[in-house]
Amino acid sequence: MANPTAAMLVIGDEILSGRTRDANMYHLAGKLTEAGIDLKEVRVVADDAPKIEAAVASLAHKHDHLFTSGGIGPTHDDITADCVAAAMGALIDVRDDARAILQAHYDRQGMEMNDARLRMARIPNGALLIDNPVSHAPGFSLGNVHVMAGVPKIFEAMVEGLLPTLTGGDPLLSVTVRVDRGEGDIAGPLGELAASNPNLSFGSYPFQKKDGRYGANLVIRGTDLSQINEAAARLKEIFGDDAT
Amino acid sequence: MANPTAAMLVIGDEILSGRTRDANMYHLAGKLTEAGIDLKEVRVVADDAPKIEAAVASLAHKHDHLFTSGGIGPTHDDITADCVAAAMGALIDVRDDARAILQAHYDRQGMEMNDARLRMARIPNGALLIDNPVSHAPGFSLGNVHVMAGVPKIFEAMVEGLLPTLTGGDPLLSVTVRVDRGEGDIAGPLGELAASNPNLSFGSYPFQKKDGRYGANLVIRGTDLSQINEAAARLKEIFGDDAT
Repeated sequence: MANPTAAMLVIGDEILSGRTRDANMYHLAGKLTEAGIDLKEVRVVADDAPKIEAAVASLAHKHDHLFTSGGIGPTHDDITADCVAAAMGALIDVRDDARAILQAHYDRQGMEMNDARLRMARIPNGALLIDNPVSHAPGFSLGNVHVMAGVPKIFEAMVEGLLPTLTGGDPLLSVTVRVDRGEGDIAGPLGELAASNPNLSFGSYPFQKKDGRYGANLVIRGTDLSQINEAAARLKEIFGDDAT
Repeated sequence: MANPTAAMLVIGDEILSGRTRDANMYHLAGKLTEAGIDLKEVRVVADDAPKIEAAVASLAHKHDHLFTSGGIGPTHDDITADCVAAAMGALIDVRDDARAILQAHYDRQGMEMNDARLRMARIPNGALLIDNPVSHAPGFSLGNVHVMAGVPKIFEAMVEGLLPTLTGGDPLLSVTVRVDRGEGDIAGPLGELAASNPNLSFGSYPFQKKDGRYGANLVIRGTDLSQINEAAARLKEIFGDDAT
């Protein structure tokens, strides 16, 4: 059976303006690969309700899972929860379970609940909460849409809690063969090997060495390790002493 | 007049599998902000022709510019040039000007042209070449689609050559005010200030200090520096000694 597919939606003006370098895409991509969920597409959009709603509706429809990052704090530009509810046709309001989690946290901290903080308890009807062990304001899963925070430490903690609850497939495995030749010399034999192994994917990632000469890391990906190893052995045979 | 808008398309299995952390989005976002071109959307897709073609067609139609990154090398998975040509309805073949650039480079290096290297001279009819001062294989602009390499050093060099040839708008300026209070205390006054300054955008980016307490960087963005400074002064007035 084919692995489940996923998309990611990163939400935030700060990514598109170049203020912040996104870290969550790289983190999630690695974790999904381990879990056997195939990340097929990522989009980054601004804090703009129509754009967020359109992206959520499209991506949630096309994939088994959609993971979002960003826009669930207390400020005016935190509109992800409302946009996801609108895109999925769900009602949204302050929910008692989420409010209780926040209230307990603020009580412990000796802080007061106010309207801004209460916004973080806005959770769509029918959604399951995602635990936030870092700063307590929860994320949520509404159908196949998993809504998480943008702050990397919180995003990573939410992913760690969420992923074991999802059904994955065969983990995507990979083996890398380094070849100390230019890609122009590698491309021919590599293309033939790729054509004769349709179950594997072959990537070539060039690099330049300190002496100015080129090499490439050839990455073989698939779910069957013995097939991958066989292809790696064939690459080493082809490129001889230049392959390690 | 409103600034031109842009989208970016990052192409490559290695980003979606978590093998490689993309660096080009962050780089381009910063450069476009300086140039007064508004980056509205980024997508990341795999080395998959129908996905690349659909994304190019959609994003080139919606924005003044589309910048792509990745998939223009010599190997079998380098299919961006052909996909862009297909999406834009252009013919593509080995072009004499691109071939001459590559041939001169290989002659200097004492390397032979072969079929794989010749693939990098496949350029759509009507496209303008984008100079590659690093490894010589050119990128190209076809209509409003600017096709560049994925290797960050090459991508950055291509952006540096390309951007001065595009007409930008007013650079997006920003001023940051640090407030040493939790976002829950900041959100109310910040939301009011945002509502009364529709020409500016206000972002709030929380952080946790070593002592466990929270603060936030409030970023005010716009094209009129005096308006931005006025709003920053107002924030400092509101948050008093907690604002720096």
